[in-house]
Amino acid sequence: MANTDCVGVRVFSLNCCGVIGSGLAIFSKHRIHDTFLYRYSLNGYPYMAHHGDWFGGKAVGMAILNLAGLTANVYVTHLHAEYSREKDSYLSHRVVQAWELQQFIRHTSTGADVVIVGGDLNMHPQDLGCRLLMSYTGLRDSYVETAKFDGCENGMTLIADNLFISKNELIPFEKGIRIDYILFKGSSKTDIYCDCMSTTKGSIPGHPLPYSDHEALTVELRLESHIPAQTGSDKTQDTPTEKLAELVDTLTEARTEVKVGLHCAERIRYTAARTGVMGLALLFLELAIAAVPCFALGAEQPFPRISFYLLAILCFAILLTTFLLYIFHTMELKSLQGAEDQMRLAAGSLQEKLRGFSVTQPHSVPQRSPDGEQPCALDPEE
Amino acid sequence: MANTDCVGVRVFSLNCCGVIGSGLAIFSKHRIHDTFLYRYSLNGYPYMAHHGDWFGGKAVGMAILNLAGLTANVYVTHLHAEYSREKDSYLSHRVVQAWELQQFIRHTSTGADVVIVGGDLNMHPQDLGCRLLMSYTGLRDSYVETAKFDGCENGMTLIADNLFISKNELIPFEKGIRIDYILFKGSSKTDIYCDCMSTTKGSIPGHPLPYSDHEALTVELRLESHIPAQTGSDKTQDTPTEKLAELVDTLTEARTEVKVGLHCAERIRYTAARTGVMGLALLFLELAIAAVPCFALGAEQPFPRISFYLLAILCFAILLTTFLLYIFHTMELKSLQGAEDQMRLAAGSLQEKLRGFSVTQPHSVPQRSPDGEQPCALDPEE
Repeated sequence: MANTDCVGVRVFSLNCCGVIGSGLAIFSKHRIHDTFLYRYSLNGYPYMAHHGDWFGGKAVGMAILNLAGLTANVYVTHLHAEYSREKDSYLSHRVVQAWELQQFIRHTSTGADVVIVGGDLNMHPQDLGCRLLMSYTGLRDSYVETAKFDGCENGMTLIADNLFISKNELIPFEKGIRIDYILFKGSSKTDIYCDCMSTTKGSIPGHPLPYSDHEALTVELRLESHIPAQTGSDKTQDTPTEKLAELVDTLTEARTEVKVGLHCAERIRYTAARTGVMGLALLFLELAIAAVPCFALGAEQPFPRISFYLLAILCFAILLTTFLLYIFHTMELKSLQGAEDQMRLAAGSLQEKLRGFSVTQPHSVPQRSPDGEQPCALDPEE
Repeated sequence: MANTDCVGVRVFSLNCCGVIGSGLAIFSKHRIHDTFLYRYSLNGYPYMAHHGDWFGGKAVGMAILNLAGLTANVYVTHLHAEYSREKDSYLSHRVVQAWELQQFIRHTSTGADVVIVGGDLNMHPQDLGCRLLMSYTGLRDSYVETAKFDGCENGMTLIADNLFISKNELIPFEKGIRIDYILFKGSSKTDIYCDCMSTTKGSIPGHPLPYSDHEALTVELRLESHIPAQTGSDKTQDTPTEKLAELVDTLTEARTEVKVGLHCAERIRYTAARTGVMGLALLFLELAIAAVPCFALGAEQPFPRISFYLLAILCFAILLTTFLLYIFHTMELKSLQGAEDQMRLAAGSLQEKLRGFSVTQPHSVPQRSPDGEQPCALDPEE
């Protein structure tokens, strides 16, 4: 995971997730001082083997670098793919992944002077997960912020001209979509600017094939460190009311998507349980029929031996499959429920902040959120 | 996940892991401002259903509270049980859990003024995982630090007198063991002291049964906030050389345990693969034997139909089981390898710090670790 090769490049490979590995890595010419890895709780279904995401084991990795005395937290991730824009059966999983990604970045970057996030988010810039991530963390999109851009139209990273892409995958976006990002933010000690951004443009010059099905992104970021205006925690910096309100809306939308996912998971689990019970009933019925000739000696076996064994195999296969499905979807339900619960808590906390704002705004005095020592009678919405 | 009941208690329940839930919760009379949850990458085996740990889905949860202007990060966790002290087949899993726990606490508590960790660590105070956790995070053990103690002998939390405990479980510790902890630390802004600690002592007074198989812990912590001597990052605080050297030793020990685990997982996976190939060979052999009468018309079926079907069922069962085992242990291998890689990186980083010490110590000038810009020729041990 941490190697130094001959030109002094350090590697943090995240290939330790799932069955075949996540395929993620951070290469750095600066020493990697510390690392941490978070596996998303939800990542598709193992029985959707043709999609393969579950076997990849999606995660977010963090490497902590020291850039001339500044602490830089560099993150890399890959979220679940979207196989159909119209009927996206993985939307709730991707929303939960975006939620966990923002939690991971927020909670682990408190001490960082610079935060850089790179990854294939498999979301369009205005998609729910992207909004959730950007508004919660305050990360800025290098494509939007860059002073100079050289690359595909609209910063697209999945383009129709790429030989590895089937045109059908992109419908209804004929030309392509932007789903890979480099995001960044500074801190009270550091300002960060994107001077230049570029993407590859399909095939390698002089070769018929491109490097990958996605276009590669490159950015040049410029850091300016300064003495913070006020020392102390960054946590007290107040977000404007509109931003808070927008965040509450995004969160409500995310909770709705997760609830839809919960409903789907519950339905599949119910179907699995019902099919399992039917398989069990069939097995008992078969055993009962088979038992008749044993008790009534001399009676003929009512149906051919071969169908008897085939039916038994079928029953066992049904029982095993439905048992595994039931276990898997119970775990999915638990994870979705957990994410929804955390979102509910976060929404409550934001609404409390908003209430604080609406009280203090007339006097234009920014105020920290109340300490929460009041009894629940004063706390109606929780 | 966040509820306020009538006496103003907030709950952060972590029951969203695994199949039956982790059974963890944080109850707080202070408002819970934020939460985060980390599921351990390794947690036993689903086919060890009688142990049940895998189904519980072990995790560590964090709740962020605001205590009179101070940020308190409260963690709760439960690590994999130790079913045999002599032949502990889960040791590598528990060591990886302890490793992930210290990573989670370290990376998420940078901005905290107070850190409190409570949990059933399933490790004795001098066990490898405990040493790894305590030395890496700088957490202090409330049983060791408390000014006043009222509870079971030696702070034991799993005692022989508890009716839910079978005496055999405790061998060779007849009286009991201490495996539940409340750990804490302050920050540059806060000092924290443990004034008083107590444990329950078996059965509820006046009742024959105890509340649980473990004794409950209670501590009274006192916080003293002060103006930090030097503002700026806490990360530069230098650890004494002996502590660093001890940490490197602990890390080496942990890597050894993880490597033992890797070896075991590889062996099981190899056995699964070999058995699977044998099952496949048996199936082909059977099909070949069955095909003979088809081609040589009129020849007798060489063995009875019933054995034929039973053998086919057996082959399919072997193939399915070994396939699932192979997938599961590949994931286990990946996780163990990932943890070992991260430990190797951390050991390298510590050794570099130590080298920095041995250079600076003669002049008694503390120095930050070198920036790591040198090429690998100057970096022999990586």
